[in-house]
Amino acid sequence: MSRVEQLQQALDEVGADAMVLRLAENVLLATGYWVQIGGLGIAVVPRQGEAALLVPEYEEPEARGSWPGDLRTFPAIRFDGESAPAAIDRILRQLAQEHGAAGGTIGYEGSFDSVAPPRLDGEPNAVSGGTQALIRSTFSTEKLVDVTPALEAIRLVKSEHDLDRLRVTNQIAKLGLDAFKEHAVAGRTEAEVAAAVESAMVAGGHGYEGARTVRAYATVLSGPETAAGWQYFLHRARRIEQDDVVMLELGTCADGYWSDHTRTVVAGTATDRQRQALAAVLAGADAALAAAKPGATGGEVDAASRAAVAAAGFEQFPHHTGHGTGFRYHESRPQLVPAGEHALEAGMVIVTEPGIYEEGLGGFRWEDDAVVTAEGGRLLAETDYGLD
Amino acid sequence: MSRVEQLQQALDEVGADAMVLRLAENVLLATGYWVQIGGLGIAVVPRQGEAALLVPEYEEPEARGSWPGDLRTFPAIRFDGESAPAAIDRILRQLAQEHGAAGGTIGYEGSFDSVAPPRLDGEPNAVSGGTQALIRSTFSTEKLVDVTPALEAIRLVKSEHDLDRLRVTNQIAKLGLDAFKEHAVAGRTEAEVAAAVESAMVAGGHGYEGARTVRAYATVLSGPETAAGWQYFLHRARRIEQDDVVMLELGTCADGYWSDHTRTVVAGTATDRQRQALAAVLAGADAALAAAKPGATGGEVDAASRAAVAAAGFEQFPHHTGHGTGFRYHESRPQLVPAGEHALEAGMVIVTEPGIYEEGLGGFRWEDDAVVTAEGGRLLAETDYGLD
Repeated sequence: MSRVEQLQQALDEVGADAMVLRLAENVLLATGYWVQIGGLGIAVVPRQGEAALLVPEYEEPEARGSWPGDLRTFPAIRFDGESAPAAIDRILRQLAQEHGAAGGTIGYEGSFDSVAPPRLDGEPNAVSGGTQALIRSTFSTEKLVDVTPALEAIRLVKSEHDLDRLRVTNQIAKLGLDAFKEHAVAGRTEAEVAAAVESAMVAGGHGYEGARTVRAYATVLSGPETAAGWQYFLHRARRIEQDDVVMLELGTCADGYWSDHTRTVVAGTATDRQRQALAAVLAGADAALAAAKPGATGGEVDAASRAAVAAAGFEQFPHHTGHGTGFRYHESRPQLVPAGEHALEAGMVIVTEPGIYEEGLGGFRWEDDAVVTAEGGRLLAETDYGLD
Repeated sequence: MSRVEQLQQALDEVGADAMVLRLAENVLLATGYWVQIGGLGIAVVPRQGEAALLVPEYEEPEARGSWPGDLRTFPAIRFDGESAPAAIDRILRQLAQEHGAAGGTIGYEGSFDSVAPPRLDGEPNAVSGGTQALIRSTFSTEKLVDVTPALEAIRLVKSEHDLDRLRVTNQIAKLGLDAFKEHAVAGRTEAEVAAAVESAMVAGGHGYEGARTVRAYATVLSGPETAAGWQYFLHRARRIEQDDVVMLELGTCADGYWSDHTRTVVAGTATDRQRQALAAVLAGADAALAAAKPGATGGEVDAASRAAVAAAGFEQFPHHTGHGTGFRYHESRPQLVPAGEHALEAGMVIVTEPGIYEEGLGGFRWEDDAVVTAEGGRLLAETDYGLD
């Protein structure tokens, strides 16, 4: 079943006549096109018939490359004719009429309280009052229904195309993971290392296996403070010292497909106990991946990871063991957490990120992305380096 | 009047008992603290009394550095005790009781259909169904009122503190603008130039005049396609050729304060007509800045720019001449557009970005940020290079 057919089935189930999607992640889901500016790229999926993609005129060639269906364009970024809002209003009214959805029940992205940024990630869009008013007005209805649960469920299992693009995203992330190993040395500041990681990915990622647009989100922490590295940290102007522990947290987005990685290295020579800690973390990750088979629950995967870390003589920190990823840095499902009830299915993409944090020793976390298969989680990219 | 007092006056005006702010840009406005994860940093402003800031426990030291008022913390990112959602729920209920706002009318960010990302910009938050449900539940009310118009009005005129931080943001942007001039040479790819710009800003910006966290959003386009550079463009793996026109579009965020810049250079030697085009653009920018005095309308500033470009023998493209900036890459007001009616006030921060685009010649745009003063727009940063 195509994505559009899945979305139409969801419309059937909630009794809605069409859905209007404005978030980059959901326009991508429906059409395969990753919009440049949120709100200036809209997908309309009717209960029956063809879905439509609205984009500014100047995006038509790129949009046409991803979306073979109904494509409607409007002028934007210029004041010498119809304005973009007026044109969007006009086209949505037309679509409402063409699909007999005017006055009907319309699905919208009603509970996305966090979002994946579009290509222009400095100013992401959201679905708030303005979008709801637009839908009410153009579809002549007060009957809006939140289709967030259906969207989250549909994107949970990745298609072959999704998996191929996620493989590319992970390969581009590897450019950054390798740059991290190279640059995480004494004398560099944390911010310099983060800049080098992102630079390697942006410079090397564009054009890599057809990737059009790559954005990197790196954060680096070093030194004794890594013992609190289970927190969300931020890099500083601090210079890495000899034998410091250095951690990288890395989000990667290639054409709307996301990955999430962590690496830990020592800028010099690791102690025996630090090596044991990383070995325990890797054992925890391996155990989680081995357990990540269709039918397993998030809680079972989490427990497998913690048991392996305990068997290696350490205690895994009580943050999550992992989560879903793909259309977002962090997908809402599945959660790989203590007692987590989400059941894994083949084709889901997850991360495993066990961590050990000890005062005096430092923080050790290692995170990779994997697709769930009958044999367990299969990694989407691997690096070939260790702690030092 | 402090920001909190301004927000309290707005509550008076709309007849609300408190407002709950979850977007990074508005938490910054209310408290001076730029949150790390949207939704895990919340400001509550009661109609009377002290405003409160909620953050995860581990952010307390940094939050305390910016916000001297009521600070409440909760555990997060760990599964060995009360969850963050449960703790946020509990604290909001307490605040509703303490301020007598339970059952009252509560203001929320109801129409932010685009948002400024928080520090962790790979996954910004939005105010959608989840946040509204949280407010309804914790304040025991169905009476939510959208305070977006009040928030947009209050942040329009910058405080002395805001202007000082925007000066720092613009100085950090200058690191990127200078790197652009250095790296926009034949042989480099557009993506490589963008990576170099961002890298210079991230590596050099952290710690610059106290800047804690810097994010850069660069886009580079080169060659004949710059003639369509009025569009939102995206960099490619294309290598810059000798004598190509190269354009940079650059958003900068330092601790929640934004700037917006454009530069155009020639990777080699410009033609006379290209020099004339850039001179016309600069004349248009100067005329816009000269017109940007308190009381002038956006339409007047726009007209001044177009007249100067026309006097230099070119036609300015019919995109906007400029817009507000500061708490967002693009603020909603003032719009410097044909017939624009927004009136300028001292302390507003605007950008001017006239552009000329011609097939065969290329695209030429130059954009700087300025504060509105009685003498006109005063630039927040300047570079000392020209077209080639």
